[in-house]
Amino acid sequence: MRATLIHGAHDVRLEEVPDPVLSTGGDAIVRVVAACVCGSDLWPYRGITPTKRPRRVGHEFVGIVEAVGDDVSKIRVGDFVIAPFYDCDMTCVNCLNGVSTSCLNGGWWGADDRLGGFADGAQGERVRVPHADGSLVATPTVPADHLIPSLLTLADVMGTGHHAAISAGVRQGSTVVVVGDGAVGLCAVLAAKRLGASRVISMSRHADRQAVAREFGATDIVEERGAEGIARIKELFDGIGPDCVLECVGTKESMDQAIKSVRPGGKVGYVGVPNGGSELPIRELFHANIGVNGGVAPVRNYIEELLPEVLDGRIDPGRVFDLELPLSEVAEAFAAMDERRAIKVLLRP
Amino acid sequence: MRATLIHGAHDVRLEEVPDPVLSTGGDAIVRVVAACVCGSDLWPYRGITPTKRPRRVGHEFVGIVEAVGDDVSKIRVGDFVIAPFYDCDMTCVNCLNGVSTSCLNGGWWGADDRLGGFADGAQGERVRVPHADGSLVATPTVPADHLIPSLLTLADVMGTGHHAAISAGVRQGSTVVVVGDGAVGLCAVLAAKRLGASRVISMSRHADRQAVAREFGATDIVEERGAEGIARIKELFDGIGPDCVLECVGTKESMDQAIKSVRPGGKVGYVGVPNGGSELPIRELFHANIGVNGGVAPVRNYIEELLPEVLDGRIDPGRVFDLELPLSEVAEAFAAMDERRAIKVLLRP
Repeated sequence: MRATLIHGAHDVRLEEVPDPVLSTGGDAIVRVVAACVCGSDLWPYRGITPTKRPRRVGHEFVGIVEAVGDDVSKIRVGDFVIAPFYDCDMTCVNCLNGVSTSCLNGGWWGADDRLGGFADGAQGERVRVPHADGSLVATPTVPADHLIPSLLTLADVMGTGHHAAISAGVRQGSTVVVVGDGAVGLCAVLAAKRLGASRVISMSRHADRQAVAREFGATDIVEERGAEGIARIKELFDGIGPDCVLECVGTKESMDQAIKSVRPGGKVGYVGVPNGGSELPIRELFHANIGVNGGVAPVRNYIEELLPEVLDGRIDPGRVFDLELPLSEVAEAFAAMDERRAIKVLLRP
Repeated sequence: MRATLIHGAHDVRLEEVPDPVLSTGGDAIVRVVAACVCGSDLWPYRGITPTKRPRRVGHEFVGIVEAVGDDVSKIRVGDFVIAPFYDCDMTCVNCLNGVSTSCLNGGWWGADDRLGGFADGAQGERVRVPHADGSLVATPTVPADHLIPSLLTLADVMGTGHHAAISAGVRQGSTVVVVGDGAVGLCAVLAAKRLGASRVISMSRHADRQAVAREFGATDIVEERGAEGIARIKELFDGIGPDCVLECVGTKESMDQAIKSVRPGGKVGYVGVPNGGSELPIRELFHANIGVNGGVAPVRNYIEELLPEVLDGRIDPGRVFDLELPLSEVAEAFAAMDERRAIKVLLRP
């Protein structure tokens, strides 16, 4: 089959690789219907994190189950399934505690897993899925094609935006600021609105992203950044700040902005993979009782809650995809996101 | 009147000072019935934080109102009152948001406040209380003498322990570890138990404190510290860790221990004033979804909730006082706490 490998900075290639095979009784083989490029894929693409040797890439996909191992009981051949950006058994204590990203038996796409097999990256034609009964969620029927983008967001960005909102304690009536206007930040706007936020401010300086933020429920847009951005946010909240700030970038600057914007006693929910020296300033947090919660989003735990709303059209997070390309143009997909010509690119094998 | 001044390391003196006077219409003058020495008073006493010039000390007291300003409407002469370890108006947005320690008009005992008057330290005979209607809580009647110690804990340590528990999200069935066996740590044990924790582990290596922890509801005691302490905690929770860790010390070591002990997806509630380089390791927090919440405890916001349980004897946090001295022996009170001969010392003017 064909699958994407990253070789180094600005060098991704679609190549012939071996077909995946069932390696354990708990596996499934899924034919990818749609995958995409993640903002976090841009770190190695930009050379910010090194690529020591060519490796398979991609970790968000939906598809059709083609084969299952003997021990798989919930997932069946022919099911349309959503896979989170990691695999997990959903039976260990961490999964049951709601943190399936810390699954005791889980792993990451594109890596050798602890069961001795290889879990393919998602930017390919097929993927071997360990712990298929835990990792995958099947839709009740094979969904209409127009639902594919929104279903695909449940693999990562919509669940991750939701995690930012949950981690910051967003609830009915909360005032919310979202730092970051990538796909996750935009989904965080939608998640905050969905949870009942009375006011949602998107910090964005790109017209296309601002438009999606408004569609998703943003009540205000703030274009300023850094100290000016903080001042503008404070001004919008009588000098006090919002209840919740959702940090959806992962840099030291974005985290500083989040901490300095939120009101005393407020919470920062963060989901951006921390890049750069971003230790948290505990004295500043202490004096104003600012909580910091979040982390790598356990999106598998959220799929059942969000899926019905995608299926019946109440939420349409798939709007974050503003470019669709065939898998054969995966290199262009990376370039378009890197150059900010696209918010997020959907790939069809 | 007489009041305590700290002159430098190991040098506290009871001295003659001017009587406090009503400086604003919102003031009250309170005759101190009981005050105490705080663990945080030991930082300057030990010379860890410098004392640049002699200053009034003490910030926990209960007493009888002797005079009120013209604008005071809730508090009356003759009332028995509890004062939090700061003053606050309880009408500003931060107070209403539950963070009265960030009161827009509040201040700290022993400092010149923004209204141009001086708010006395509490280790003296009388205290001028700004924002008396907000700062003070009156008991329904003048309480029996045996209740004084527990009522005094509502000024700081019991409210602070409660804040640690609330910040860590302790609820019915939670598993909890408390780092620190000072008065706050012991009160945190009581607070966790009161909120329904199914298991509360006190990390303590002092027999007298272990005894109080057990009385307060600790189900287990762990004497080990550092890496050994973390290993022991993990062992007690099947290698996973507790839901909540209450960090009641404030050192880098204690915070590290808290973060490394809690389970994935768990929360650290912290109330120890951060001393030393204790920036938070964001990558470690991110990967395991560990939340860190807390800060300088808004105890004023908790007094109404805790007071009825103190008055009817359901909780007896005053057990943390294991030495009572006349105010004239304040120097000995500091020495006893510094040398760990006492958990916490109550002072009677």
